[in-house]
Amino acid sequence: MTIFSILDIAGTAVFAISGALAAMHKRFDPFGVVILAIVTAIGGGTLRDVLIGRLPVGWMQDMTYIYVILAATFTAFVFRDKLLRLRKAFFLFDTIGLGLFTITGVELGIQAGLHPLICIILGTMSASFGGVLRDVLSNQVPVIFQKEIYALASIAGGTLFLILLETGWEQDIIYVLTSLLVIVIRLLAVKYDWSLPQMNLSDRE
Amino acid sequence: MTIFSILDIAGTAVFAISGALAAMHKRFDPFGVVILAIVTAIGGGTLRDVLIGRLPVGWMQDMTYIYVILAATFTAFVFRDKLLRLRKAFFLFDTIGLGLFTITGVELGIQAGLHPLICIILGTMSASFGGVLRDVLSNQVPVIFQKEIYALASIAGGTLFLILLETGWEQDIIYVLTSLLVIVIRLLAVKYDWSLPQMNLSDRE
Amino acid sequence: MTIFSILDIAGTAVFAISGALAAMHKRFDPFGVVILAIVTAIGGGTLRDVLIGRLPVGWMQDMTYIYVILAATFTAFVFRDKLLRLRKAFFLFDTIGLGLFTITGVELGIQAGLHPLICIILGTMSASFGGVLRDVLSNQVPVIFQKEIYALASIAGGTLFLILLETGWEQDIIYVLTSLLVIVIRLLAVKYDWSLPQMNLSDRE
Repeated sequence: MTIFSILDIAGTAVFAISGALAAMHKRFDPFGVVILAIVTAIGGGTLRDVLIGRLPVGWMQDMTYIYVILAATFTAFVFRDKLLRLRKAFFLFDTIGLGLFTITGVELGIQAGLHPLICIILGTMSASFGGVLRDVLSNQVPVIFQKEIYALASIAGGTLFLILLETGWEQDIIYVLTSLLVIVIRLLAVKYDWSLPQMNLSDRE
Repeated sequence: MTIFSILDIAGTAVFAISGALAAMHKRFDPFGVVILAIVTAIGGGTLRDVLIGRLPVGWMQDMTYIYVILAATFTAFVFRDKLLRLRKAFFLFDTIGLGLFTITGVELGIQAGLHPLICIILGTMSASFGGVLRDVLSNQVPVIFQKEIYALASIAGGTLFLILLETGWEQDIIYVLTSLLVIVIRLLAVKYDWSLPQMNLSDRE
Repeated sequence: MTIFSILDIAGTAVFAISGALAAMHKRFDPFGVVILAIVTAIGGGTLRDVLIGRLPVGWMQDMTYIYVILAATFTAFVFRDKLLRLRKAFFLFDTIGLGLFTITGVELGIQAGLHPLICIILGTMSASFGGVLRDVLSNQVPVIFQKEIYALASIAGGTLFLILLETGWEQDIIYVLTSLLVIVIRLLAVKYDWSLPQMNLSDRE
């Protein structure tokens, strides 16, 4: 098992947990919980694979993804009292997923021979799409459209990834470092309340 | 014409009617009605074909789908007074579509050489996606996320389908039996108000 | 550079501006503005390319699209005071995008050997999908589902395109004429308040 699959599957697991938490918070029935966990976990990878023509999509060809999603959802269900009380749990799982899926998205873009800028966009899209689906389906404003520096963290990680590739470092180290960068930026952004200014256009008139 | 195409086209027709009814109920203009009928009818099959890489998607390569959708929408329009007054009509068409598209989704998964569990997921996704699009676009909470045992009926039918395939029975009989199972489970679930327990987590604290 | 690419890229630019305007109107943060501009601009073409199996999708293989989107978004940002005050600006950019993407959608359908009716549907879907995404993500009712003759303009243009192809005229002229037809129909429809009757069904009972 390559470090690529490990990151991709770990990202799948944490997004499944974030989806399950969102669904339990909204009191979906058990099947609703499983469905939202699946959609959140496979959403980004599915979009990524479809856009680059890697079909049938990855999770259909390797059963590990589905087993991991079901196990993660079950875990979230068992520890739901603890996890739902921890207000930061949902946020943490979503953030780890963002970091991991950014890097696997960029990596698959490189393998498909795409331009570096496209790879970064692909990474950002595939890292955030599962969360967008989760938020839309559970009737929340998608996190990516809120104040937090969500997309920026992903773009920064993708950019560092492409830069480090030029250094010739061991690829596994680069994967881990850049995923961590995304996660750390987002955690710090929320902790210290970093945010980009809103477009206060009408106020000025 | 194979029984597979017949089921796929019949599913398309009933979903078109359910989409047209939803649009007329919300007083969309005539083009809005046609568009919602089309989106509901082709949504599931499109997702299915894209995920497994059966491109261009099925309804683009066989005009029967479009003609059937237009005819079904016209029929729904002509009988709108009767159909909109029958509160169960919408529900019935949606349920038949669920049954038929579950089985055609599972069947295409098998043909693509996918794992049985993936086939069931593919069947459930393609059976419910058109309805999700219909509900989102007509500003309803998707049926699949409500109390009724919607996804479970689809999963049960897909599972029975895979089991019966092992028996060596005539495939056409299996198609019909398993589609009927999905339809009957959902009808009974609503009639006797079967439902899965909600996640009443916050209440317990 | 063919006239096809010019129309496709111009459509991308105007949809990017319409997305940026919608985001600034809703006071998204700068990254939200860029993201909504990108999604609006590439949404329709992405759907179109995925449905016909033209993968990786067009904007991933030609950097012009991304550069044009970024430039258009920057322009919208610089002139935001003027553009947001002009109530018709948003509407105008959306309409030009509708006209251009209808024709490029129909053209790619023809190249994929699809039935003329499918080509028109493909053109209409790809012309309106970016706007649907934009409206859903900025929490508006999609324009295509409102009273204005949005889809009809697109269908009329696609139909004229297919008819003129039979005349043997120069293709570039046909492209321009039919795009203009879509734009003019929609502008006139709004100016003179043309609209299709709503389905006033419940009133009659």
